Amino acid sequence: MTFAATIVTLYPEMFPGPLGISLAGRALREGRWSLDTVQIRDFAIDRHRTVDDTPAGGGAGMVLRADVLAAALDSVGPGRPVLAMTPRGAPLTQARVRALAAGPGAVVLCGRFEGFDERIFEAREIEEVSIGDYILSGGEMGALVLLDACIRLVPGVMGAPSSGMDESFETGLLEYPQYTRPVEWEGRTIPEVLRSGDHARIEAWRRRQAETDTRLRRPDLWERHEGARVQSPSGAQRRTRDE
Amino acid sequence: MTFAATIVTLYPEMFPGPLGISLAGRALREGRWSLDTVQIRDFAIDRHRTVDDTPAGGGAGMVLRADVLAAALDSVGPGRPVLAMTPRGAPLTQARVRALAAGPGAVVLCGRFEGFDERIFEAREIEEVSIGDYILSGGEMGALVLLDACIRLVPGVMGAPSSGMDESFETGLLEYPQYTRPVEWEGRTIPEVLRSGDHARIEAWRRRQAETDTRLRRPDLWERHEGARVQSPSGAQRRTRDE
Repeated sequence: MTFAATIVTLYPEMFPGPLGISLAGRALREGRWSLDTVQIRDFAIDRHRTVDDTPAGGGAGMVLRADVLAAALDSVGPGRPVLAMTPRGAPLTQARVRALAAGPGAVVLCGRFEGFDERIFEAREIEEVSIGDYILSGGEMGALVLLDACIRLVPGVMGAPSSGMDESFETGLLEYPQYTRPVEWEGRTIPEVLRSGDHARIEAWRRRQAETDTRLRRPDLWERHEGARVQSPSGAQRRTRDE
Repeated sequence: MTFAATIVTLYPEMFPGPLGISLAGRALREGRWSLDTVQIRDFAIDRHRTVDDTPAGGGAGMVLRADVLAAALDSVGPGRPVLAMTPRGAPLTQARVRALAAGPGAVVLCGRFEGFDERIFEAREIEEVSIGDYILSGGEMGALVLLDACIRLVPGVMGAPSSGMDESFETGLLEYPQYTRPVEWEGRTIPEVLRSGDHARIEAWRRRQAETDTRLRRPDLWERHEGARVQSPSGAQRRTRDE
C-alpha cells in the first residue's frame, strides 16, 4: 500500500514542487507515494468563483468560506485523516508524523489570508496542525513540510530501512554531534573517543553529548524527557524502543 | 533596501519553488526580495566532487564535510546573518522572523543526510535554527519555510502594511476564531456578538476567545504569556503594542 496525499489548496501549482526532487521525487516516480491536488476555487458557488469574504465583526484580511471549503473537502473520498495547516493547530511532532506515515496517507487543507471560517472545524472531522510558532503566507509550506516528514518514513524511500531511529526527537533527545573526515581541519580535530574504535565508549559519549546538548539547548525537551523517566522508568524504556 | 536570500544547498533546483508563486513570487519578480543559490558540490576538493563522508565513530548515514561547507559559505559575501537549518537548532519564533525580515536578508545553509560536521559551527559564525520538532529529509524545506515567513513581512509584499499584527503569536496568544458569510451554514450561525456592530464588545469577545483557546490548546504558550504579565505588567503591555 502506498501513502496517498491529497492537497486541498488555492495553489495546486505549488505541488509537488520541492517534493518532486531528491528522495521524495524519486519515490513519487517509483509509485511509493502518490499526490493529487484539489483546487478550492473549483467549488465556489457564484460566477465570480469567490472563495473568501470579509471577517464577521470586522478586521483586516479575508476569511475562507466554510461552505466552499466543505464542498472541496467533500469531493475527496473517505478513509484518510484530514489535516488543516493552521497556527492555531496542535504542534506537529515526530510521533504524529510516524503515525501518519504508517497509515494510508493524508488529506491536507491549506488556508490563505486570515484563515478558515471556524465552522468548518465543527462541521467536518479535521485535525488542526501547526508546524511551528511563526506565521506563513499560507498552509502550502506547512503541507510540504508535513509531507516531506512523512514520506521519508514510507518504506523504501530512504536507503537503509533503519535510518532515522537514531535521530533528534526519536528518543526524546536532540541528536549527538556528528564528525567526519578530515580528522584535522583548521586546527580542530575529531574528538579522540570517536576514533578509538571502542564502541561502548563511543555510545556512552554520544549519549552524554545528546543529554548535555538537550539540557542546554532545549530545556523544554529535557524537562519532558526527565519527567517521562521519573514518572515511569520502564514505560519510558518501552516507549524508546517502540517509536 | 531589499531582502537578499542566499541558499547554500545540494539542491538549488528546489528554489524558488513554491516561493516563485503567489505573493512571494510576485514580490520576487518586483524586486522586493532577491534569491540566489550556492551549490555546495561546486566546492568539493576531489575529482569525484565528494561532499560527505561516513560518521566518525560509526553509525548510519553520511555527514557533510566541514571543509567543503566552509568553502561554500566563504564564497558568499559578508554582511548578512548565516543560519543553518538543523533539528538541533533553536526553535524558530515569530520574533526571530520579524528581526530577520527587518535586516538585509539571510544566508541559509541546508544539510542533508545525517547532518553537518559539528566543527563548522565552531569555526564559522552560524545560527542553528529548527522549524519544529520533527525530522525532514533536508534543510531545504526549512529554508523555504523560513524565507516564506520573512518575505511576507518585507515592506510592500502583503497588501495592507498593518496585516499580520493581529495574528497568532504576534501578541503571545493564538488568534481568535474567524467567521465570514454565509451567516447560517449547515445550521451553524456566526456568533451573535460578531454581527452586533458593537466594536468594544467584539474586541472583548475576541480577546476572551484568544485567551481561552491559547489556554486550552497551547498551555505552554499560555504559561509563557501569563508569566510575562505577572513579572512585568507594564512591560508586557508595551511589548504587545510594539510588536
